[in-house]
Amino acid sequence: MPTLYHHSMSSPSRFVRLILTEYGYQTELIEEQTWEKRRDFLALNPAGTLPVYVDDSMRALCGATVISEYLDETHGVLKRDRRLLAEDPFQRAEIRRLTEWFMQKMEQDVTRPLVRERVYKLQMTADQGGGAPDSKLMRMARGNIRQHMKYLSWLAGSRQWLAGDRLSYADLAAAASISVLDYLGEIDWAESPVVKEWYQRMKSRPSFRPILAERVRAITPVSHYADLDF
Amino acid sequence: MPTLYHHSMSSPSRFVRLILTEYGYQTELIEEQTWEKRRDFLALNPAGTLPVYVDDSMRALCGATVISEYLDETHGVLKRDRRLLAEDPFQRAEIRRLTEWFMQKMEQDVTRPLVRERVYKLQMTADQGGGAPDSKLMRMARGNIRQHMKYLSWLAGSRQWLAGDRLSYADLAAAASISVLDYLGEIDWAESPVVKEWYQRMKSRPSFRPILAERVRAITPVSHYADLDF
Repeated sequence: MPTLYHHSMSSPSRFVRLILTEYGYQTELIEEQTWEKRRDFLALNPAGTLPVYVDDSMRALCGATVISEYLDETHGVLKRDRRLLAEDPFQRAEIRRLTEWFMQKMEQDVTRPLVRERVYKLQMTADQGGGAPDSKLMRMARGNIRQHMKYLSWLAGSRQWLAGDRLSYADLAAAASISVLDYLGEIDWAESPVVKEWYQRMKSRPSFRPILAERVRAITPVSHYADLDF
Repeated sequence: MPTLYHHSMSSPSRFVRLILTEYGYQTELIEEQTWEKRRDFLALNPAGTLPVYVDDSMRALCGATVISEYLDETHGVLKRDRRLLAEDPFQRAEIRRLTEWFMQKMEQDVTRPLVRERVYKLQMTADQGGGAPDSKLMRMARGNIRQHMKYLSWLAGSRQWLAGDRLSYADLAAAASISVLDYLGEIDWAESPVVKEWYQRMKSRPSFRPILAERVRAITPVSHYADLDF
């Protein structure tokens, strides 16, 4: 069985897990704490980042973009109207642009700093950079959430799914990030009713169930986290 | 004619220019100073990043990854042994992993901070964040160069081209970054003879000529910058 090195609170990991489940894939999940810089893990991915997918021939694929493109080429292409990347090159470009937006821009502006300060630092030793969260970094990240929610509101309000008429990688990438932030109680849903309606649809998908059932050591999610009707 | 919004010292812009020239494309180049946050430019790419490719139907493609995938799907696929992404999904994954390494990891660790401190800040007003370079940020970026050159040495020493037997996006992405750093005199070539041999081959390609001929306002390149035999 293929293996996915992931972390429950890494949104690129969640994105790839959602793709795999949508396509009906079985993988073994191994939680990796990247800050430990394990030698065996760095041998798989010298960049030291998550997720890493290792197939049955022990070949490693590194990072959400590389894995998602590979899964499209080897499996998505056979899925017809359930394909998560479109057929048309321009439509594919729009899906990729948005996926990159959530997996890179939003990740850098908001999700990665908040997860690092609020989750990873609790688990790191002092040598690894652990300790109290940096309130300045958290304030900056929180200040950026609103702009991203506004953009999401615009997308969710003007299209059936974020990149167009069909569920795509863009929806899975956005929902991966939003679900991490929602676990931490960082989303003010009263402010973004249109995004909420879209996220309710995403949460109701069977692919979301395992993610909603997961809990991170020492951090309780907000009370509505796993509710489909919140 | 399609248009490419770029900046001479943006390595993702250079990467896309190299692809376009390798494939024999004519495009109009428009230099964009992203720190001005022009409204018309943000309408093309809400992320405000370079490069942006606008085709003859005025459809915009944003960012090096999206543009390079689009060019592969619409043109690379017809190029047979001159295709810059391989045919095999695993080989494609390796090319994408390395392209991402240079366009994202090296960009973040080294190229983007050095270009920002040494080039862009000279052109920005105080309101835009201009002013004297931050020596601490430059020291950090310079400290990271060595690790990237070591990895490049390993790749160039163990393979004919960086991702395997054929010239690929990985080579163009790496050469885009290296050429920006070399312009600024940031590469110590005596330390990396294997990378030097590879970069000489890259510089000798006709696609590199326009880039080597370009000069940035107020910054003279190192004396060997445009020499093919340096």
